[in-house]
Amino acid sequence: MQEKESYVLAPCCRSSGDLQMYRQMVEIGDRIKGLKLDRPDRWKERISEEVQKLLSLKEQLGNAKPQKFQLKTPKGTRDYNPRQMAIREGVFKTIINCFKRHGAETIDTPVFELKETLTGKYGEDAKLIYDLADQGGEILSLRYDLTVPFARYLAMNKISTIKRYHIAKVYRRDNPAMTRGRYREFYQCDFDIAGQYDLMIPDAECVKIVAEILSELNVGDFIIKLNNRLLLDGMFAVCGVPEDKFRTICSAVDKLDKTFWEDVRSEMVDEKGLAPEVADRIGEYVRLNGQLELVEQLMQDEQMMKNKMARQGLEEMKLLLTYCQLFGVLNKVSFDLSLARGLDYYTGVIYEAILTSTTEKAQTDGADKNESVGVGSVAGGGRYDGLVGMFDPKGKKVPCVGVSIGIERLFSIMEAKAEAAEGKVRTTETQVYVASGQKNMLEERMKLCNLLWEGGIKTELSYKKNPKLLNQFQYAEEHGIPFLAIIGEQELKDGVVKVRNTSTREEETFPREKLLDEIRTRVSSS
Amino acid sequence: MQEKESYVLAPCCRSSGDLQMYRQMVEIGDRIKGLKLDRPDRWKERISEEVQKLLSLKEQLGNAKPQKFQLKTPKGTRDYNPRQMAIREGVFKTIINCFKRHGAETIDTPVFELKETLTGKYGEDAKLIYDLADQGGEILSLRYDLTVPFARYLAMNKISTIKRYHIAKVYRRDNPAMTRGRYREFYQCDFDIAGQYDLMIPDAECVKIVAEILSELNVGDFIIKLNNRLLLDGMFAVCGVPEDKFRTICSAVDKLDKTFWEDVRSEMVDEKGLAPEVADRIGEYVRLNGQLELVEQLMQDEQMMKNKMARQGLEEMKLLLTYCQLFGVLNKVSFDLSLARGLDYYTGVIYEAILTSTTEKAQTDGADKNESVGVGSVAGGGRYDGLVGMFDPKGKKVPCVGVSIGIERLFSIMEAKAEAAEGKVRTTETQVYVASGQKNMLEERMKLCNLLWEGGIKTELSYKKNPKLLNQFQYAEEHGIPFLAIIGEQELKDGVVKVRNTSTREEETFPREKLLDEIRTRVSSS
Repeated sequence: MQEKESYVLAPCCRSSGDLQMYRQMVEIGDRIKGLKLDRPDRWKERISEEVQKLLSLKEQLGNAKPQKFQLKTPKGTRDYNPRQMAIREGVFKTIINCFKRHGAETIDTPVFELKETLTGKYGEDAKLIYDLADQGGEILSLRYDLTVPFARYLAMNKISTIKRYHIAKVYRRDNPAMTRGRYREFYQCDFDIAGQYDLMIPDAECVKIVAEILSELNVGDFIIKLNNRLLLDGMFAVCGVPEDKFRTICSAVDKLDKTFWEDVRSEMVDEKGLAPEVADRIGEYVRLNGQLELVEQLMQDEQMMKNKMARQGLEEMKLLLTYCQLFGVLNKVSFDLSLARGLDYYTGVIYEAILTSTTEKAQTDGADKNESVGVGSVAGGGRYDGLVGMFDPKGKKVPCVGVSIGIERLFSIMEAKAEAAEGKVRTTETQVYVASGQKNMLEERMKLCNLLWEGGIKTELSYKKNPKLLNQFQYAEEHGIPFLAIIGEQELKDGVVKVRNTSTREEETFPREKLLDEIRTRVSSS
Repeated sequence: MQEKESYVLAPCCRSSGDLQMYRQMVEIGDRIKGLKLDRPDRWKERISEEVQKLLSLKEQLGNAKPQKFQLKTPKGTRDYNPRQMAIREGVFKTIINCFKRHGAETIDTPVFELKETLTGKYGEDAKLIYDLADQGGEILSLRYDLTVPFARYLAMNKISTIKRYHIAKVYRRDNPAMTRGRYREFYQCDFDIAGQYDLMIPDAECVKIVAEILSELNVGDFIIKLNNRLLLDGMFAVCGVPEDKFRTICSAVDKLDKTFWEDVRSEMVDEKGLAPEVADRIGEYVRLNGQLELVEQLMQDEQMMKNKMARQGLEEMKLLLTYCQLFGVLNKVSFDLSLARGLDYYTGVIYEAILTSTTEKAQTDGADKNESVGVGSVAGGGRYDGLVGMFDPKGKKVPCVGVSIGIERLFSIMEAKAEAAEGKVRTTETQVYVASGQKNMLEERMKLCNLLWEGGIKTELSYKKNPKLLNQFQYAEEHGIPFLAIIGEQELKDGVVKVRNTSTREEETFPREKLLDEIRTRVSSS
């Protein structure tokens, strides 16, 4: 799939309408200048009005010009064809089965939220939020993830315990890389556990779920990186980062999976004003990864153990790794101090799963060589104990932990696999094709079709009045429809129907009243 | 659910920042006035810049003021809780089964389209389209229905034959009436057949599908109104409507299901400038409804039969009603000359299903008495042979016909039914709850849980370190979990697990290695 840039041909009007528009613009300018300094309380409303008028002028300009008509989906989005949908449904089934196996319920929320609901939750990523146009009602934005709407849902309904999954599309005005499965509209499959529980038990179940899903989808080797925001903040403090820079430095560390330490260091020092020696101390820590032995090693680090946050973070990591062992997924995890996650709202454990095998390369055909290193993160999440409280009028906190499966990248891989296998993916489930080789049998075909539908059999017929028998056979074969029910003058006279097996080409004749039973027996065993 | 109006508290600043903002506004006004008349080609771009600056000023004003924080979903939208989701999933299953029984594939398209893709397709309804903010890329709008994106998909991929369903949310800035299931964000379930086929065969299958779905959902009596745009246009011509007023008069007729003929007549005469006697002639026709006998009656109408469109429309209606009879749904349809449908793109047969029984009243609790007359249309559609051609660079036409199930209104009814029945709706599928009555058994509970998960059993455990046994029993009972797997010191020593049936309270003990098989036998028969 090729990405295309959008463009608008430059307007080049010199028509008589220009003068009229020009006059309107001068008037708008006058009105804006004329807003009274003693009535700033009315500015907002008046500005809205003038913005509306300017936008309408702009639209007139746009409509008046010849535009190249574009037959495409918006940048960073795609359609799913029936074949892709069949693959997608399979992936969803695996994921939903896993969520249900862990006792989750499901909810749904609107695709847009009040803009203020999203404000202040995403840190530097907030610039990627899609806003809706101000059409004279509420100010709305498309959801950026499913976590913030979930927190809003909990606070709004005063729910303090729930284990839910939510599968829905989210929207980010990011730079798309569609060959690698990075889109502006994409599905997230979220599993979250809300409630006041004992340390690290739900947190470990989230790791287990990611491991189960990635194993079952059969997308090759993967590793789930684990870290902890408390530990990161403690480490920043120990290294000498001022507290007001924790989040921005954290967001720099987050880039380590895509770029070199040198670039991250220079972002910290040159852009974010960190002392070079502080950055270097951070550099020492973020190269560390391991499992329980790394926890032990850091527990020997006196400076770290003196910091309360770091100590708490390490204790949590120890417990989490122990529980991962009990859940049989220790071999799938790596305690990685370079894992930071971009979003502001995490307060404890953080996760990120990446694919490590080379099978993923299959799906980067035609992509830039340098870009084909990996599909990157396929799942991520963490603990966010403060988010629900941001929505509660009294600030009541509901501790939460969850993971999100980045399904589009997994689709890309599954699609490439299906492509490589060149196997036929059936996109319909039709069991019987009602056919006739004779003319003027349309009404009889319709009646027979109706009989099968009423009997719950998935049935199709040709929409032509007098289709050729060969074309009907061909249709059944091409669409993988296992049986044909064939009628003609003789069959009608005898009160029978001929049933043809599409693959063996064997034909049998049954009395019409026994047809449903015979078909049912055949489709259940085929 | 109560609707709430959005509002913004009036800003009331008199701060030192006011003066600065005031100066900025004067500057913007000057710049707009300063646009040069000899460079209209640059206006559009400059207006964009000034709009951005005004918007940013507006935002500063907004941010500076105390706003009442609103914990709500946007106007006209709602969340679905787990109970509602369980009901929704059931409804979807019925609908998807029906679509698959008729051999349909499925596709998906993005939630937004280029604005120009939607332009000129919806007639007077276009004002209800949600636009996205201009954030410096393409100009986008949320989809208004699934039909236009489907036509865009066909033209873009040069597909001329497909039978597909598409279940997704669409967006309309309409006046919401949520107690009656009318929302601004709502699901549509569309089934469409594209392709050059013989007259009325796919058209009749669409009627059959609506009848099957509404019957299976068990929402009471219903009637599927049928009409034909060709017949309507022919009838308008016969009555003396000028050709350029066909669509606007059609859109007036469309209101007949919600309002009286007198109001529609006055819209035609006073607003749309139709001669009173022409309106009265229309009035004579639109009161007619029936079945095949009405077709025969109209075929006696000499004036009608002289008009080519009317004649063609009547012949199509005759054929459609005959096919409806073959498909066993004649008793569910009514040929109704008052049916017009609002959208511009229909070119032939049109459908609309309405519920006629009184069961629907259950769901209008608390709604205004006058509003509780009915949930109105629950499905609609028709033939649109010109729409795909509007997208094809060469104007190549692909004839299409389809129906859309208005699922939200059906949900409202199903929800009310579930409420009235007061039955417990299970929102999870958990089969086993792993429990212990002793302390320090967390790790053993986790191990047992893992064993069951690995065996594919839907299992939960308490996230507390030392939960009380009674609380664990209670959890299983409240959530309808049929079995508990209980362990303690003794069970561990003996290598056994106690299985408790939640409803009968019977307990049996099994060797740990036989547990999976025993559980599987029990859950498959329970």
